[in-house]
Amino acid sequence: MRDVRMRGFAERADVEEVDAFLAQHTSALEAQPTPLLECAGRVLAEDVVADVDVPGFRRAAMDGYAVRGEDTFGASDYDPIALDLVGEALPGAPFAGRLAPGQALRIMTGAAVPEGADAVVMAEVCEERDGRVRVREAVAPHKNIGAVGEDIRTGDALLARGRRLRPQDVGVLSSIGRASLRCTRRPRVRLVVTGNELLPAGSRPGGPDGTHIVDSNSVVLRALVVRDGGEVLPFEILRDEPDAIAAAMADPAADLVLVSGGSSVGQEDHAPRLLAAHGRLDFHGVAMRPSSPTGVGRLAGRFVFLLPGNPVSCLCAYEFFAGPTLRALGGRSRAWPHRRVRLPLARKIASAVGRTDYVRVAVEEGRAVPIATTGASILSSTVRAAGAVVVPRELEGMAEGEEVEVRLYDEDLPA
Amino acid sequence: MRDVRMRGFAERADVEEVDAFLAQHTSALEAQPTPLLECAGRVLAEDVVADVDVPGFRRAAMDGYAVRGEDTFGASDYDPIALDLVGEALPGAPFAGRLAPGQALRIMTGAAVPEGADAVVMAEVCEERDGRVRVREAVAPHKNIGAVGEDIRTGDALLARGRRLRPQDVGVLSSIGRASLRCTRRPRVRLVVTGNELLPAGSRPGGPDGTHIVDSNSVVLRALVVRDGGEVLPFEILRDEPDAIAAAMADPAADLVLVSGGSSVGQEDHAPRLLAAHGRLDFHGVAMRPSSPTGVGRLAGRFVFLLPGNPVSCLCAYEFFAGPTLRALGGRSRAWPHRRVRLPLARKIASAVGRTDYVRVAVEEGRAVPIATTGASILSSTVRAAGAVVVPRELEGMAEGEEVEVRLYDEDLPA
Repeated sequence: MRDVRMRGFAERADVEEVDAFLAQHTSALEAQPTPLLECAGRVLAEDVVADVDVPGFRRAAMDGYAVRGEDTFGASDYDPIALDLVGEALPGAPFAGRLAPGQALRIMTGAAVPEGADAVVMAEVCEERDGRVRVREAVAPHKNIGAVGEDIRTGDALLARGRRLRPQDVGVLSSIGRASLRCTRRPRVRLVVTGNELLPAGSRPGGPDGTHIVDSNSVVLRALVVRDGGEVLPFEILRDEPDAIAAAMADPAADLVLVSGGSSVGQEDHAPRLLAAHGRLDFHGVAMRPSSPTGVGRLAGRFVFLLPGNPVSCLCAYEFFAGPTLRALGGRSRAWPHRRVRLPLARKIASAVGRTDYVRVAVEEGRAVPIATTGASILSSTVRAAGAVVVPRELEGMAEGEEVEVRLYDEDLPA
Repeated sequence: MRDVRMRGFAERADVEEVDAFLAQHTSALEAQPTPLLECAGRVLAEDVVADVDVPGFRRAAMDGYAVRGEDTFGASDYDPIALDLVGEALPGAPFAGRLAPGQALRIMTGAAVPEGADAVVMAEVCEERDGRVRVREAVAPHKNIGAVGEDIRTGDALLARGRRLRPQDVGVLSSIGRASLRCTRRPRVRLVVTGNELLPAGSRPGGPDGTHIVDSNSVVLRALVVRDGGEVLPFEILRDEPDAIAAAMADPAADLVLVSGGSSVGQEDHAPRLLAAHGRLDFHGVAMRPSSPTGVGRLAGRFVFLLPGNPVSCLCAYEFFAGPTLRALGGRSRAWPHRRVRLPLARKIASAVGRTDYVRVAVEEGRAVPIATTGASILSSTVRAAGAVVVPRELEGMAEGEEVEVRLYDEDLPA
């Protein structure tokens, strides 16, 4: 890694360079014991091998009568075979004895098949009378019995570390008797939002002199962090004061720090200088639009992302750099979580070779329509948009009619 | 609706018939005030119109000097124009006065542009000396100033009811000063799992006589309910006792009841009879595989789903019937939430005209491979599978090589 601390914005890094650096320097957090009922959606940090059979007993797969199959051979409507009814087995209430030749046991689906029986003849072809069961159809041995271990066998490799646990995975883990699993710990994220002009979420904009705005970046970031499996540490807006910002960036409770605002090279932009002074500022300035003032560094072994204060830039820089890193810390895939759809472009997109662009697009009549906006301060453009198109740095743009990949903000295309 | 209470399994309903019935009889729950920071991912139940401008003041879009543009006309490197420096404006710290002709104000990005100024000239073309600013480049009026309302204007229709709120939506709502929103209430779900053979999740399977199994259905259902935006009410396994089951099905706290186990027509299958006796059993028996013993009914104005006890049947019946209904109660789309991919089929799937099949498939070498299993009791098959293919009732199967749509269990295809 060349030393980039001093380059400021004189030399901007490529998106791919920053991404590769982050991928190389990030690994999943440690595992922690996690109660079974909290495991869905979490990332497994152990290999799970079954240490029991499921089921652990031969179970009836039908309502009917447990018998020795050979006792029924030759049975028919015209020539039923009568067996002695010796009792009943219900799920959770097995028959205590062993079935002898010539005997039958009333049995319900899921109940244990007793020793001596090797088949279940279904209720529909039987008739009970006077303590006997008349069987009108032969049943082959093993028929209608679920074998020991038919679902899961002792020694089966069920789930591998790294698996994001599905609902049914947790069900299987329950069925083998697991009460907790080792899952990758959820990353804790410190949000550091600075700006003397900011009012906390829930305030009316304006303030005493009409020039205060309401913080939206922490609100958006909080939701993105939760989307990506992280936990947000307690948060309050900081004033643009170096000591407070430096202390927040060094929060020992955090696995990742997201600084929003004060990331540029202006008079009040303390964060890059503080990060360089107290830790490392690996990158400052990225060849992209928006989000070019993005910075990436490390402090006390944790990544610190300097996200621009402009809300669209903040969102974009999160998606490109912080999101993949957060997901990787939590054991998830670095890939963007958005569903993707390929659509023709309604109007050309102008970009520049050497720069990566994040272009908000609407979807109208099956085409991707780039949203004209005056810039990165227009958060409402990301509300009007259906998603974003990324123009890679090799291209100077994309032509009208060209098929492009849209990363959808929602799970589905708008109707 | 014809009366189906008595039909038992003699006449099975089609999947489409049950689905249409559920769609027709389900509407979103009432709205409730929801704190802003809890709104991401929730469904908006009001139309949001902006009642403020964002920004509410003219703001500097650059670091530089606020000036009257015409005062800079003619400025060049060779012939700079000097203006009187009258002070400074920072974000959240506006300049108190009005800018007079011939004056300039040092200003930072995001700060309020004072009355009298109509442009910001960027810092790079200016030089401060002895209380004056020498400007080396002319700036046109309105340049580098963000207009009042450039992001959001009073009266803008920002978000419509029914919208599932994105991270950036919540950011925009914060920026207009909303502290809470009316969102559709999250549906509360009562899980009713019965079976004397069941041990609670976290137990070792076997029990005192070796014939007890660990409940997995409530574990899977809990995760599915959370996936679909519902809340699970306090839960415990019930014994197969009619009074306890009837009381649980009538839980007044629930918006939806999911009964698992005891839904068939056997001796211990109380649920259908109880539902028919205390409410309505609209459907019992569906032409599908697995899950044919599924029942759907209503009690005290709420839907009650009778899901089969076999774990794959339970999962499948949830996805077809309970899931869409739960999502609709919460204001979400009824559509299955799975990502879909089209793949050729590695082996034919046999089905039957008149029956809908839910077929678990693995994905190997880019092809969908139906998983051979002995039946609906094999929950581990849904762990090995990458997703499911639905064979509609019009088809008697699907041919090898045919392209089919796989509903993926995970967000991505396996590597």
